[in-house]
Amino acid sequence: MSGTREAILDTARRHFAELGYDRTTLRGVAGAAGVDTALVIHFYGSKQRLFALAAELPIDTEVVVPGLLAGPRATIGHRLARQVLDTLAQEEGRRRVTGLIRAAASEEAAARVIRERITRELLVPIAEGIDAPDAALRAALVSSQIVGLVMARYVVALDALTGADDDLLAAAVGVTLQNYLTGPLGAAGTS
Amino acid sequence: MSGTREAILDTARRHFAELGYDRTTLRGVAGAAGVDTALVIHFYGSKQRLFALAAELPIDTEVVVPGLLAGPRATIGHRLARQVLDTLAQEEGRRRVTGLIRAAASEEAAARVIRERITRELLVPIAEGIDAPDAALRAALVSSQIVGLVMARYVVALDALTGADDDLLAAAVGVTLQNYLTGPLGAAGTS
Repeated sequence: MSGTREAILDTARRHFAELGYDRTTLRGVAGAAGVDTALVIHFYGSKQRLFALAAELPIDTEVVVPGLLAGPRATIGHRLARQVLDTLAQEEGRRRVTGLIRAAASEEAAARVIRERITRELLVPIAEGIDAPDAALRAALVSSQIVGLVMARYVVALDALTGADDDLLAAAVGVTLQNYLTGPLGAAGTS
Repeated sequence: MSGTREAILDTARRHFAELGYDRTTLRGVAGAAGVDTALVIHFYGSKQRLFALAAELPIDTEVVVPGLLAGPRATIGHRLARQVLDTLAQEEGRRRVTGLIRAAASEEAAARVIRERITRELLVPIAEGIDAPDAALRAALVSSQIVGLVMARYVVALDALTGADDDLLAAAVGVTLQNYLTGPLGAAGTS
């Protein structure tokens, strides 16, 4: 029974990632998982609740944040970029993150997950952990680049990104995240 | 009559921007524009066609690209960031770009507009115009940051970005775009 329950959640994650929030239906998930719609409702109640569970981040922020903060400040953005690319390299991680970001385009519940789980629980603690001034703004800028990378590579599917080597992307995006976290923020050192 | 036609298109842009592609309906647009659905269909045919027209970029790439290339290479990313922020500062520009990026999350036609109009017609010519190696990858990275900024600021609505000063954002994002266009791409100078 817990196998069925998990299979429904896996199917839901795939549908949210591939179809987006609006086009994912309990009936469609049930059909693809080979169960009755009533069983999906029995287990998960509503599409919103199913989404809330499917959108769980594929990383444990209570492990990742202290891990990143334990290393040198001068490379924290690079190491964060590597962590993001590694998570996206795994099918399960890519599916969850992509589903979440696609859903955020139309569903406030998904936008909230990005605000609360990605930004507030992952990125703000990193920016605060290195005592960066304007930590909230820095975390938000980091969030914007991560969200944009996922959108451009997996949703818009720009050839140059889908075909790019992960090491090269981690290096290029790493420079950006490092600058957002520890750089002067503006060309004129406005911060 | 052309006033009505334009009013319908304006309403459609607002709906695509605020509701996303899937939740925008011809009936809803007609209702908000105070006309009959049949008139919307008469003018625009289908939601996809209405979207294609509503998604027209709020800038003229044939003016913007030569303009950016006419200035110094060392500031082209900063000037592009300024251009993006200025476009987003205008309600009409913000509405079109946000509508397009929201729609891309679920609608392939919108993803195609980002690939073709934003990336291929705007960003690749800029990267090629400054003779950057790996122009396609650089343009795609720039695209990822612009898409992410719009998502994070106007769709996910991160407080730190919605409240941020445009000059500060243009400066911070300008460093990123400049690096993507003219920097070494990787920390180790992989490119």
